[in-house]
Amino acid sequence: MLKQKVVLGVDVGGTNVKMALVSKTGKIIDRAQFAVGEKRSAVEIVRRIVDCAKLLSERTSLKFSAAGCGIPGIVDFEKGIVCRSPHFPEWKNGKFREMLHRSLRVPVAIDNDANMFAIGESLLGAAKRSDNMVFLTLGTGIGAGIILDHKLLRGDRGFAGEVGHITLNADGPKCECGSNGCFELYAASRAFEINFSKLTKGEQKNILSLANVSSAKHLTPEMVADLAAKKNAAAIRLWNEFGKYFGIGLAALTNVLGVTCFVVGGGISESLGFFKKAAIKEYANRTYPENARALTIQKANLGQNGGLIGSAVEAFSLLA
Amino acid sequence: MLKQKVVLGVDVGGTNVKMALVSKTGKIIDRAQFAVGEKRSAVEIVRRIVDCAKLLSERTSLKFSAAGCGIPGIVDFEKGIVCRSPHFPEWKNGKFREMLHRSLRVPVAIDNDANMFAIGESLLGAAKRSDNMVFLTLGTGIGAGIILDHKLLRGDRGFAGEVGHITLNADGPKCECGSNGCFELYAASRAFEINFSKLTKGEQKNILSLANVSSAKHLTPEMVADLAAKKNAAAIRLWNEFGKYFGIGLAALTNVLGVTCFVVGGGISESLGFFKKAAIKEYANRTYPENARALTIQKANLGQNGGLIGSAVEAFSLLA
Repeated sequence: MLKQKVVLGVDVGGTNVKMALVSKTGKIIDRAQFAVGEKRSAVEIVRRIVDCAKLLSERTSLKFSAAGCGIPGIVDFEKGIVCRSPHFPEWKNGKFREMLHRSLRVPVAIDNDANMFAIGESLLGAAKRSDNMVFLTLGTGIGAGIILDHKLLRGDRGFAGEVGHITLNADGPKCECGSNGCFELYAASRAFEINFSKLTKGEQKNILSLANVSSAKHLTPEMVADLAAKKNAAAIRLWNEFGKYFGIGLAALTNVLGVTCFVVGGGISESLGFFKKAAIKEYANRTYPENARALTIQKANLGQNGGLIGSAVEAFSLLA
Repeated sequence: MLKQKVVLGVDVGGTNVKMALVSKTGKIIDRAQFAVGEKRSAVEIVRRIVDCAKLLSERTSLKFSAAGCGIPGIVDFEKGIVCRSPHFPEWKNGKFREMLHRSLRVPVAIDNDANMFAIGESLLGAAKRSDNMVFLTLGTGIGAGIILDHKLLRGDRGFAGEVGHITLNADGPKCECGSNGCFELYAASRAFEINFSKLTKGEQKNILSLANVSSAKHLTPEMVADLAAKKNAAAIRLWNEFGKYFGIGLAALTNVLGVTCFVVGGGISESLGFFKKAAIKEYANRTYPENARALTIQKANLGQNGGLIGSAVEAFSLLA
């Protein structure tokens, strides 16, 4: 009897590397993961991916026919090179695909992790019915995967989708990237610190004391979400500011790409309910009414599995 | 003997409608144009296009096999509908393609005018060697045509490329579109008025008197270019500000699309020499060094003919 065809999906994160054997329909058959730890060289990570892959194959008695691997950073899909990765600076311009291919001995695709999530959500998740969509991952920064006519937009050398660094305020606060007023300052984890000054002195004192932190720098999205759930006015205001800028950023994406279907993932997407209304309102101020009527902002459907499933989809496409 | 195959290119502008018979290689065989005047209904414009087309056919003894028509505004290419046009508000949601098709009795394509220019420059003009490019027309506002992998990006319902309205300053000056701090306030004809306050009082007085206007509102790009050519410090500064914001906008486009090849048309592109250096410098602050190294900003090659030639290219593609 013929065994089913499976592939290996790999989702490299700054903290953990997750892996799974995935079927053609996107079903996860078995999974494993390891903590990245201190040894972060590409050689070391590849070695551990290969070990885990062997384990998965033995455990399931299934051989995988291809592998897909999502990596946080800018990836040249065509050349199989990691151009730059904030979590793995020493991988810069490394031939990661070739390294994986030599060790795993199957065809390998590597891509930006948000791209993998976008593929997953586009084919099997929240945006199944849309030709065009943008997947945004909201965490420390903003990552994006852009799907146009059911295909990923990668741009020159893989540099498309770096939307966290579009300018929303030309003379705004300094971003780590060297620019000022970047989208991700206002609609990712630093947003609460950045928008803190818009609160009254009383609100400032109140939220710091309730969150039990000494300064706005230490306010996490989880803290502000907890307080908003308890109807704290300052926390609600901070989420409204977050939503306002998120809406400005989405409108910019629509005005460039003509896309109105957005899917949101990453830790902060859990709080979408706190900032969606403000985002929709501001979006309508920043683009045409036709776009505002068409706008959809959905939470990712595949959750944490999106990256693994998208990687598997890319792996299967190598076999087609 | 077989006559050569030609198509009709039409470039509808707010003031003039230009038309030409164009060969497969993009050669303009004969041309005609008419002033739009006061009767601006779609019925009237179509009637006059048909008259002009007959004239061209008679004059050259050539029959055209298809027609392409560029229109200022948002055009749904698939449906052949003009969604909205600032110059022709009453055309809203009109079936312009069907009207032209019925009268001309050949296959017709209609598209946004900047898209037509982008196609022209991409296939036969300044960006012939680039897979990906953005064409920007700088005039009263900023129009754009985006080419990805040699194909036009149109987005949902034709709403891609409305880049003039991406936000560069969330709390910036009011734009006619209802938003604030739009790209086109800072890098199109209103830029000099908007940036005037950054000049010293002395510079302000000086430039108004040399340009012989009563207020900054009346400063035209031509005036500021003339003065910059004469090394006037205030004019040079206004172009530097223009370039700075142009660079911020280009970087946003790169960070979304991963495109680094830009072609500039429209009246203000004649002054590219006055703002290119400042644009390149600011661009480097707003995106990755890899993009800054790859950046090219070129003047359109086909000049005023770009729209006609792009329209002809779209017409020929109907015959393929």
